[in-house]
Amino acid sequence: MIPDPSPQALDQLPSPSLLIEKSQMLANVERMRAALARHDVDLRPHVKTCKSPPIARLMAEGWSGAVTVSTLREAEEFLSAGFRDILYAVGITLHKLPEVERLTRAGADLSLILDSLEAAEVVAAYCRERDLRLPVLIEIDSDGHRAGVAPDDRETLVSIGTALHQKGPELRGVMTHGGGSYGVVGEAALARHADLERSGAVKAAALLRGAGLPCPVVSVGSTPTALHARDLTGVTEVRAGVYVFFDLVMVWLGACAVGEVALSVLTRVIGHQRTRGWIIVDAGWMALSRDRGTEHQAVDQGYGLVCDIDGRPIEDLVVISANQEHGIIAHRGGLSLDTERFPIGMPLRILPNHACATAAQHHSYHLVEGSSVEALLPRFGGW
Amino acid sequence: MIPDPSPQALDQLPSPSLLIEKSQMLANVERMRAALARHDVDLRPHVKTCKSPPIARLMAEGWSGAVTVSTLREAEEFLSAGFRDILYAVGITLHKLPEVERLTRAGADLSLILDSLEAAEVVAAYCRERDLRLPVLIEIDSDGHRAGVAPDDRETLVSIGTALHQKGPELRGVMTHGGGSYGVVGEAALARHADLERSGAVKAAALLRGAGLPCPVVSVGSTPTALHARDLTGVTEVRAGVYVFFDLVMVWLGACAVGEVALSVLTRVIGHQRTRGWIIVDAGWMALSRDRGTEHQAVDQGYGLVCDIDGRPIEDLVVISANQEHGIIAHRGGLSLDTERFPIGMPLRILPNHACATAAQHHSYHLVEGSSVEALLPRFGGW
Repeated sequence: MIPDPSPQALDQLPSPSLLIEKSQMLANVERMRAALARHDVDLRPHVKTCKSPPIARLMAEGWSGAVTVSTLREAEEFLSAGFRDILYAVGITLHKLPEVERLTRAGADLSLILDSLEAAEVVAAYCRERDLRLPVLIEIDSDGHRAGVAPDDRETLVSIGTALHQKGPELRGVMTHGGGSYGVVGEAALARHADLERSGAVKAAALLRGAGLPCPVVSVGSTPTALHARDLTGVTEVRAGVYVFFDLVMVWLGACAVGEVALSVLTRVIGHQRTRGWIIVDAGWMALSRDRGTEHQAVDQGYGLVCDIDGRPIEDLVVISANQEHGIIAHRGGLSLDTERFPIGMPLRILPNHACATAAQHHSYHLVEGSSVEALLPRFGGW
Repeated sequence: MIPDPSPQALDQLPSPSLLIEKSQMLANVERMRAALARHDVDLRPHVKTCKSPPIARLMAEGWSGAVTVSTLREAEEFLSAGFRDILYAVGITLHKLPEVERLTRAGADLSLILDSLEAAEVVAAYCRERDLRLPVLIEIDSDGHRAGVAPDDRETLVSIGTALHQKGPELRGVMTHGGGSYGVVGEAALARHADLERSGAVKAAALLRGAGLPCPVVSVGSTPTALHARDLTGVTEVRAGVYVFFDLVMVWLGACAVGEVALSVLTRVIGHQRTRGWIIVDAGWMALSRDRGTEHQAVDQGYGLVCDIDGRPIEDLVVISANQEHGIIAHRGGLSLDTERFPIGMPLRILPNHACATAAQHHSYHLVEGSSVEALLPRFGGW
């Protein structure tokens, strides 16, 4: 943690600014630790949400130190920060292999994922040509969400596994991400989704092993499934990231309560449209992101839920509309609002729909405890 | 322009990357110049879209050199780059005045906007206390879009104008932004919207002058109204920004053709889901932004329109869905797709819904001419 050069009162920070409620973030990290302590698995935190080494260290504490990344830029930054065991969890292509090689030769144990024989042959040819043994996991499609080989597609699995194992790379195992879990609601449904991930990954691992291929790693995960899995037999590691902050999408799924959301955007009132009951603030989509993850959910949170400076939600106030540097706050149900209660300059906090997207709009985090700002934490972006 | 340290072929760039088609950007700048040459006005380009001094210089060439910004960070960066006449076009509050003072004392002619007596009194008190004469424009609400005083609200206008003029700041004039123009379609409707801006601003200026107050500046603008205004009598300057790149929202309004969009994101195929007709690429919402500006328009472009490496649209392919670093490309109408035509590693280009939002996801632009990359242009973010 980098101490803030001039520690200051929360209500004196410039706006818009990105805030983390320190005690809540620590509670979120502990909640994931406790949830996974019930199983015989490692946690490989996904650091694409925070993109900040000091936060990743908190997430990794007490586990093996492995992390998951979504870009090679993240791999580079986290390697520089001392993380060595890194899974790059986006399908690899030829154009990225020179950078993978550079990071590997710089000391990273950087594992890759792919889901086709075409990609496996490319990685194998590169490994042979460059005399490398890159570790590779086969991506499994456990829920029809996005990428991956079907868990019961023995022919494809074995052909990819063989191409990897016999031709240069290291076949390290299988991985799946049950991204469909972001679309189901409630503990029972999330537990069922966790079991889809587990059963898909374990089934694919068994098919590979049955064909005489190695499969030491069976990696699954997303925040909602990691928190709600009832059985992780056969799984070796779990990946999750957004739990460190949580957000309004996670609230809707039932993965957390509003009070557990640790990330918010500090903003100030810059004007009113009294006849319309609008409060205009200096956080637009540039500060909040364009993410409307709750748009089609039971409770549409607009561009975010409005809280007072202490982080307490204000009865049904949401950011109903956003321009680049302007947010418009109004009552969710269209009730008229006493705009006098929100004078120009008044600080407010906005809880985000999607923590990954909102955090990506900022270059640093202000770590807040009560009414004071304890530290400024770096955050990087780009590829 | 900064020459690229190692000029390279477009199809060798890393992905995702942000591209500008150089000749098209220059044509867009010329189109705005020609459109405004018909009127007796200055152009004050809005540089919140590009956030890049070399691009702003192109936009400002042949005009007075004034610019419009949406953050004080932009004011600082453009002042450092040699731009002195800067309009900060977001309602001012007390917390931002120390930074305004710093930039003013560093040589900026930094003008502010506000739309309430409350804010005017705050600025006036600050000016008196700090012995400053900050220039201020009164924001006018010409179309009910967002902020501003109603153009015929003489009482409010005169009370704000008097508070400014008599108590420290410099009352420099009025400004309005017809943001509602982003929601109307076709040349005639855009011309009517341009006239709403003009008539609102001119009416407010007349009320101020009628009360014996100065109003040298009458500032209006948005890209669609600037291009389609038929009469700008009484207006002294026009503000516009997105025209330098254009985007799919501007296409829908009728402000430009698809072929005039100069901004795109380079991506590569990383996988397929053949049974679903999906192509998976390495540009997700982190590279494209979460902006779904065309969602409720006649043609929903998803997260962007897919082009080949030369920038030619591929028959009705759009990014139908986006995760953080994954985009899913499919046929707009659900027709099945021959995924074999899109092998792993194939480069594609995605035209953005909203240039401001997509550009904000990147740290630099690659300036492309034909199949080669001519320069790397810097871009900044933050507040």
